[in-house]
Amino acid sequence: MQIAHPYLLFLGDVPDALAAKTALGIVDWRPEWCIGQYRLDGCKADAGLADMTPAEAADAGARTMIVGAVNAGGVLPDHWVASIVAALDAGMDVASGLHMRLADVPEIREAAQRSGGKLFDVRHSSERFATGKGTKRRGKRLLTVGTDCSVGKKYTALALEKEMRERGLDADFRATGQTGVFISGRGAAIDAVIADFISGAAEWISPEAADGHWDVVEGQGSLFHPSFAGVTLGLLHGSQPDAFVVCHEPTRTNMRGVKTPLPSIDDVIDMTIRCGRLTNPDIRCVGIAVNTAALDEDAAMKLLADLSRQYGLPASDPVRFGVAAIVDRLIADYGLA
Amino acid sequence: MQIAHPYLLFLGDVPDALAAKTALGIVDWRPEWCIGQYRLDGCKADAGLADMTPAEAADAGARTMIVGAVNAGGVLPDHWVASIVAALDAGMDVASGLHMRLADVPEIREAAQRSGGKLFDVRHSSERFATGKGTKRRGKRLLTVGTDCSVGKKYTALALEKEMRERGLDADFRATGQTGVFISGRGAAIDAVIADFISGAAEWISPEAADGHWDVVEGQGSLFHPSFAGVTLGLLHGSQPDAFVVCHEPTRTNMRGVKTPLPSIDDVIDMTIRCGRLTNPDIRCVGIAVNTAALDEDAAMKLLADLSRQYGLPASDPVRFGVAAIVDRLIADYGLA
Repeated sequence: MQIAHPYLLFLGDVPDALAAKTALGIVDWRPEWCIGQYRLDGCKADAGLADMTPAEAADAGARTMIVGAVNAGGVLPDHWVASIVAALDAGMDVASGLHMRLADVPEIREAAQRSGGKLFDVRHSSERFATGKGTKRRGKRLLTVGTDCSVGKKYTALALEKEMRERGLDADFRATGQTGVFISGRGAAIDAVIADFISGAAEWISPEAADGHWDVVEGQGSLFHPSFAGVTLGLLHGSQPDAFVVCHEPTRTNMRGVKTPLPSIDDVIDMTIRCGRLTNPDIRCVGIAVNTAALDEDAAMKLLADLSRQYGLPASDPVRFGVAAIVDRLIADYGLA
Repeated sequence: MQIAHPYLLFLGDVPDALAAKTALGIVDWRPEWCIGQYRLDGCKADAGLADMTPAEAADAGARTMIVGAVNAGGVLPDHWVASIVAALDAGMDVASGLHMRLADVPEIREAAQRSGGKLFDVRHSSERFATGKGTKRRGKRLLTVGTDCSVGKKYTALALEKEMRERGLDADFRATGQTGVFISGRGAAIDAVIADFISGAAEWISPEAADGHWDVVEGQGSLFHPSFAGVTLGLLHGSQPDAFVVCHEPTRTNMRGVKTPLPSIDDVIDMTIRCGRLTNPDIRCVGIAVNTAALDEDAAMKLLADLSRQYGLPASDPVRFGVAAIVDRLIADYGLA
């Protein structure tokens, strides 16, 4: 699966920016892939791109319309169907992060057949995965892990890819969730694969590569989250990281959506190494990424300095202070200068 | 999902007993549910039941025909379709462990619509699971875990259920794989659920129960298997066992199907407790079940005595020597006398 860019971002008529967060994430990280936005009357989200219709976008070179907004209830409203059909009729592919499959809507399926356009449902991988093999692959890999869900694992991985590339390293972000798939044009929503194939999907997402190449793999969930730890463990085994970064939100007390207390950073480092050794005996932690949005700048800097001293690792807030210190450590540890 | 018994076991025309191992497993553990077998010309498997046609079985009271055999290639041969249609036309439901869905075959789908019979595809749960909650449920649970796949986790769980019931304990086997589902009439093939819902499915499989009740949950995979550990961890978190039994095959050196070395029993006990504490702080190991089929009786008895001394736990081969010692320990530890 490879989603062709440039993209036209479809925002529909969503009532706020949150409902368009997938589209906004794409334009944050891949502005050069985004040729315009297509908004319906009443849309309250704005990706800061030129407004255009599917026909105008296709004329301007757009190859895929991304349905990067979610309607209330997660369903596909009837008046969005016509917009998707228009994109197909204009010669584009359409990629969606909605729960329902595009091809399950007869008008969309017929339009795709008529136009030859491809439909991508990133929540429903059509890729047939093998079971994981556990065999060491060439190339280096870094995985972001977390004390919880939604603590910045995707953002940290993307920030690392950007910083590594700016230093001249050969690095690729590898997506394991829907927004990440749009941002990288490939990957798989690993929480949507059949349980038997989690690690096999992770092996497919980050295939064998050149010795000097780094895949920066987007983490999912937490080994300590009672709902999703199975996904996290399969992803750890399949991505067989050499290095990992722990992502953390310091004001959270419970795991997201459940009553389980948050584990410590120590717990996460220790368990990640213990489990990760199964497929990569050299696994090590190279940094801590903290979402300090809830702290003022002084408190944030103090916390990061304390964590860095306590663990002997670079600690930063990727949004506030960047990830240069973590990439410095990576370069030093792996002789990448 | 509840598969109604008595069963008629369909063996098709398989070339050997191995191809009918699901059916043979059912008759081993639930002979009182099996009213007969239906074999086609050339069948080389024998479940030791009276041969009967679907019509004869239905007359004798059979409520479900189980497709408990696998053809070469795992496909449904054309000449089996007529047998399945005959079962539906005779008024039975049909349950299958094949990879393909029964309802994907037009003749079968139409026959089911015509007769009102239910179709069960135990590899494709139609149940919609919630994500796991991690909240402690009432009732006690025992989970079988393993140093590897295919080391006797299902057999051990069924043997424990049988022995516990014989001692007057209130115990139910809880199935997490296809053969287990046929044996218990309910459950789900947990490796076939969407990755996000592994622990949620495990919570559904072993619901809240009375304080004195024990669910004996069939384990899957191994926390140390690089292909399937995610399934194992989600099952551990969702089943939140009070007690677990480690299953082991002493002559194996590599994990099944991969090059990863087998973990020690120590490793498995330690990791199971570390991970299992997340949803049940009281988790403990209550026994070791060893498949000693490859050893002579003296060697087997010596190995079991050595393991028992080393770990301070009852160690037995459930097939050769039963599980009485493990149930003794359970009764002593939990005051179940």
